[in-house]
Amino acid sequence: MTRADQEGNGTHRDYTVDHHLSDAERNIHRVWDNSLDPVLTVEDGAVVRFECRDAVDRQLDVESTAADFANVSFDPVHPLTGPVAVEGAEPGDVLQVDLLDFQHKGWGYTGFMPGEMGLGLLPEEFPDAGVHVWDLQGDVGQFVNGIEVPLDPFPGVIGLAPGTDGEHDTLPPRSTGGNMDVKHMTAGSTVYLPVEVAGGLFSTADCHAAQGDGEVCVTGIEAPMFVTARFSVRTDMSIDQPQFETTGPFTPTGRDEPMYGTTGIADDLMEATKLATRHMIDHLATERDLTRGEAYILCSAAMDLKISEVVDAPNWTVSAYIPESIFPDGG
Amino acid sequence: MTRADQEGNGTHRDYTVDHHLSDAERNIHRVWDNSLDPVLTVEDGAVVRFECRDAVDRQLDVESTAADFANVSFDPVHPLTGPVAVEGAEPGDVLQVDLLDFQHKGWGYTGFMPGEMGLGLLPEEFPDAGVHVWDLQGDVGQFVNGIEVPLDPFPGVIGLAPGTDGEHDTLPPRSTGGNMDVKHMTAGSTVYLPVEVAGGLFSTADCHAAQGDGEVCVTGIEAPMFVTARFSVRTDMSIDQPQFETTGPFTPTGRDEPMYGTTGIADDLMEATKLATRHMIDHLATERDLTRGEAYILCSAAMDLKISEVVDAPNWTVSAYIPESIFPDGG
Repeated sequence: MTRADQEGNGTHRDYTVDHHLSDAERNIHRVWDNSLDPVLTVEDGAVVRFECRDAVDRQLDVESTAADFANVSFDPVHPLTGPVAVEGAEPGDVLQVDLLDFQHKGWGYTGFMPGEMGLGLLPEEFPDAGVHVWDLQGDVGQFVNGIEVPLDPFPGVIGLAPGTDGEHDTLPPRSTGGNMDVKHMTAGSTVYLPVEVAGGLFSTADCHAAQGDGEVCVTGIEAPMFVTARFSVRTDMSIDQPQFETTGPFTPTGRDEPMYGTTGIADDLMEATKLATRHMIDHLATERDLTRGEAYILCSAAMDLKISEVVDAPNWTVSAYIPESIFPDGG
Repeated sequence: MTRADQEGNGTHRDYTVDHHLSDAERNIHRVWDNSLDPVLTVEDGAVVRFECRDAVDRQLDVESTAADFANVSFDPVHPLTGPVAVEGAEPGDVLQVDLLDFQHKGWGYTGFMPGEMGLGLLPEEFPDAGVHVWDLQGDVGQFVNGIEVPLDPFPGVIGLAPGTDGEHDTLPPRSTGGNMDVKHMTAGSTVYLPVEVAGGLFSTADCHAAQGDGEVCVTGIEAPMFVTARFSVRTDMSIDQPQFETTGPFTPTGRDEPMYGTTGIADDLMEATKLATRHMIDHLATERDLTRGEAYILCSAAMDLKISEVVDAPNWTVSAYIPESIFPDGG
């Protein structure tokens, strides 16, 4: 049960599941491809409960170490549950996806790969892999030093098959959605996806029990999860890329609360993002007694990133925020 | 009186103003330059109340039109109040700036210049200038169609003289701060600035009664204002670029509330920012009966921008958020 469930409106609370899709291999695919046969075809308005594997497809468990994380193969990433065809959805329509409920399975992990693999925002600063395995119990995940990260689950991957034929990598998001990693697509939210092929061909995956904006170390709190969603075909909308409605949360407590902020000021937004993140890692290492690897993981799970200005040429400001309430003495 | 004032802690509420600086020409400068003589030298711990001109230095008033805005000269931008030297501040130190109170003067404006000037995020889509002059009364600014934007004032420019000799343009922010436009540097917040020259040489300007993350059309709600701040020299900190503490607000109401979101998905963060903003302008024009110019202005005053992911190569996700509570039927 998440805050969004508790405060969601009636249409999001009142539902019955019409269809179930397990995470059995027959329901899993690993590329976006509009030639894949749907594993399920549903009526407009149907509710489906998807079982989703974790992002790296069961190569890790609650006993995994940094060495295990360093040896993960990316070949099976991401295992997507689907595709589901929705009757009546045609190219040019919009598929409305009401996100009704998410249920994790009690554990998750956040880690970064060896820097030489070039993944994440700061690979050059982290030559060796690191991982934190989280016990997920109640509303928070336990980190080190008494730090507790609030859980606000969402699927990193929410998308439809692209109109362009062929196999497409699942790592980058695209106009039909996919690996968007928008942390506010929480339970109670609605996502709108542009339909490019008949039936839409919806899949979901890569669930996170929590994530900071940016997902800077390349993983949120990766967690196998159930995702329940209602599908509605909208012929009265036209969009180029995904849109959504959400009630957040925009802070861990759902209300204004103290944050520590760093800035990244540079003439390139990516460089400014790296600077703001690096400054936050420095702050956490200095003020919160974390190793730089722990700080990097914590940023990926709980730090938010805002674009403060993109108009004061030639330099832009990106700001990073960490909530004080996650620390034992904070809030 | 802002929310931050009301909820600020004791150290931010308990103060007396030690020094006043009016916006008379003798207290104004228009470039960052460490050779400028301070107009005031204060003791460590002093509180100064600065009077700040608006960003374009009194070329506009409450009767101004888009034609007036199109004819604004950028020569006097920005008029900075200062510099103030703080005794004991030396290169390598940090100047702690407690933002105590902001007082606007009852009006402000948000506008965009003719596209050929190349200012703002989307100049190519807005060939002609546009402006909205706001009555600032109470906690909100009145826009068109019954839309009310909550006021959360802050100075766009908060900075110190750069260590590098010579005259430096005030438009771009830099490592000593300046035109950062971080909307969460509200009353009750604390800003930390790296000192590069003896005394620090602090100046402030470009106050906004409100601003969206991004300040996309190149102006927030630009407003002449008083800024009250306390200065403390910190020899126990070392930072490369500005850092800060804030309690937001992170939403207009200070609590989780409904937002409409758009995404921009592209292989460049600036392009993704443009897409997310363009999608929001489209949404506001379609769903909220605004002209595209009005929508652009509203985005600059009230839309927030988050970096949702920067690790799913080769595409990044930027998300834009507009609060439903600003609309007559919202919230």
